Amino acid sequence: MDMKAEIITIGDEILSGQTIDTNSAYIGEKLNHLGIEIIFKTSIGDNIKNISEAIYNALNRADVVITTGGLGPTNDDLTKKAVVKVFRKNLVFHEEILKKVESNFRKRGISMPKINQNQALIPQGAKALNNLWGTAPGIFIEDSKKLFFALPGVPLEMRSILESEVLKILQKKTKTKFFQKRLKTTGTAESIIYEKVEKLIKGERDTNIAFLPSFLGVDIKLTAKSEEKLIEVEKEIKNILGNTIYGEEDIALEEVLGKLLLEKKKTISVAESCTGGLIGKRFTNVSGSSQWFERGVISYSNLSKIELLGVSEEMLEKYGAVSEQVAILMAEGIRKISKTDFGLSATGIAGPTGGTPEKPVGLVFIGFAHENDSFAEKFLFGEDRNTNRERTAQAALNLVRLFLER
Amino acid sequence: MDMKAEIITIGDEILSGQTIDTNSAYIGEKLNHLGIEIIFKTSIGDNIKNISEAIYNALNRADVVITTGGLGPTNDDLTKKAVVKVFRKNLVFHEEILKKVESNFRKRGISMPKINQNQALIPQGAKALNNLWGTAPGIFIEDSKKLFFALPGVPLEMRSILESEVLKILQKKTKTKFFQKRLKTTGTAESIIYEKVEKLIKGERDTNIAFLPSFLGVDIKLTAKSEEKLIEVEKEIKNILGNTIYGEEDIALEEVLGKLLLEKKKTISVAESCTGGLIGKRFTNVSGSSQWFERGVISYSNLSKIELLGVSEEMLEKYGAVSEQVAILMAEGIRKISKTDFGLSATGIAGPTGGTPEKPVGLVFIGFAHENDSFAEKFLFGEDRNTNRERTAQAALNLVRLFLER
Repeated sequence: MDMKAEIITIGDEILSGQTIDTNSAYIGEKLNHLGIEIIFKTSIGDNIKNISEAIYNALNRADVVITTGGLGPTNDDLTKKAVVKVFRKNLVFHEEILKKVESNFRKRGISMPKINQNQALIPQGAKALNNLWGTAPGIFIEDSKKLFFALPGVPLEMRSILESEVLKILQKKTKTKFFQKRLKTTGTAESIIYEKVEKLIKGERDTNIAFLPSFLGVDIKLTAKSEEKLIEVEKEIKNILGNTIYGEEDIALEEVLGKLLLEKKKTISVAESCTGGLIGKRFTNVSGSSQWFERGVISYSNLSKIELLGVSEEMLEKYGAVSEQVAILMAEGIRKISKTDFGLSATGIAGPTGGTPEKPVGLVFIGFAHENDSFAEKFLFGEDRNTNRERTAQAALNLVRLFLER
Repeated sequence: MDMKAEIITIGDEILSGQTIDTNSAYIGEKLNHLGIEIIFKTSIGDNIKNISEAIYNALNRADVVITTGGLGPTNDDLTKKAVVKVFRKNLVFHEEILKKVESNFRKRGISMPKINQNQALIPQGAKALNNLWGTAPGIFIEDSKKLFFALPGVPLEMRSILESEVLKILQKKTKTKFFQKRLKTTGTAESIIYEKVEKLIKGERDTNIAFLPSFLGVDIKLTAKSEEKLIEVEKEIKNILGNTIYGEEDIALEEVLGKLLLEKKKTISVAESCTGGLIGKRFTNVSGSSQWFERGVISYSNLSKIELLGVSEEMLEKYGAVSEQVAILMAEGIRKISKTDFGLSATGIAGPTGGTPEKPVGLVFIGFAHENDSFAEKFLFGEDRNTNRERTAQAALNLVRLFLER
């Protein structure tokens, strides 16, 4: 890679662990896509000496330096002061920045507090980067072949300026191009995926194939030096893994599923027990999901399974709420009352309590009903309540996706 | 604070953004509780020169240096090599460490691969810190009054060694004790809270009062040099802010609400539109929530509001699905069919589309019905779909909490 970058995150709350720094991972990934290597990440508190030192050191060892945080209008916000110290420049007032900040306040129906006038001050020779989601503009300085960016710490604001301004500037400056693709899988263990593509990985010299596992699935990241090579390796992996791959780059499983349902003109409803609404929440993460998601019930009590879904008391007693049979009845029940094409259900023992030798914590049944048939699949997840619920929702969405992709 | 610490996280996957570094936030918070201030955090890749340099620099400016990552048995794992370089020591073989590593493998029913013999090598004079959850032991070196710890990068392993070994060592070394408390608020803007406690903050010299805002609320962190002082300031703040404070330390709002419902022997049900299941999901984050949460419906379509909740078509047409009137009817409807003490509802325009001048994106009504009455509250959140939904769920939970705490 030709350019090297350093990321500096600023704020006491990051050092004390009160805030988990997600900004630097986000920036790292985006810069990597441009073939820019991150060589250092530094976090420092709201201390002007340390901020200046960190920026100074970073400019010595990297071509690109990006800071986040410390751009607000209050006394705690020291980034601009540190920047002018390092670059030996003055802060100058820009009328047009003030107007933008004022207009951002107006849009929210608030008149601008006086303190925010500070935000119209930026270092001499710097370019202000417009902040659509907040009041503090970002700052860009090009000096002695170094590219310096100061961005706000609020993730939404940082991401918006990064995407709309910073990446465009960097794209023009990078020489070597890297070609990357991320393939997303779910439902198959990392070791099994690895075994399947092991031969390909070992035979490949020009393309890096990296595995990024999480408890919701494994992403496979390909990095190649030419687009042709990338396409070739991608094709081979897709041939081997088939529909284990549900999408590319940063698409979410619910978006893939939503597109499939729209395409095939199918509607869905859901009956949730152990997930308590999480499957519905995942569906409705997608803007426009009302076109394919009709309704859901969170049938947490047995009575609600009987009253809302028509599951019989007898079946509940005979098989228990967490059973293949009840999962199927829940899916059929929600499909019937909603008059949707598909009915989906989840029932399980999320934990930490409620497990028995026969039905341990982590046991989950996902039910699915459609025009001609209904069935349930059994899963055995782990011991952690939160993870079990997240994995159940993921598995439920994936079950429907696989059904639609048959 | 008497001691200063630096955290170094090691691994290419952190720089490239493939892994979000949660370790350093965790360590930062734990050290803060001991009154140890974190002055720097650095992340570096799997490069022996950069790792050595980072450790060297950290030892120069901090009393305590903690690294995570790079302790595994493979060629990528360079931390130990860098450590012996910085401390000018050799790696020595420890039979008893090998036995522990072998026994850790045996417990998992696996025989130890040869490569793991490396893990019995630690720097001369260092203490091995036993790893209950993995195979790589941690390392502790005390040298020229500096305390150096190398921990594994896997969060579970890192946390276990930190809690069982590192914090105990540090506790013995710290002189000053700090007393801390975190008070959690929601529903009131940071600036308004600030105005209320401004006088207290300005008059307080011995207690640090820090504000930690997020889009779900503002945490107030108190740090005092004596327990008496902490209790005094805490009491004053509680007097001023009253029920804006919902809890302490890291308790979640749903846990507070669950305890209140249990105490007062009340049950609840929920009808969700814009949140799509998120309120139910928040309720059921709490283990044992089946004692107070009976059921929910995700009435995403108008038809489902009519069929499941008995909202009349006429009202939907007259006022629209996003209205005070419909929010109330939804809450009354879910309470009636569930026979719970309380019915809660949420209907709003989550965005990014669907807004009109009269009903913009971010407009939300939360409805609440109980034995004697029902009402709805209006909120105007922002433009981001995800944030709007998270804030709606938080506001809904808080509305019920405030009702119970009257």
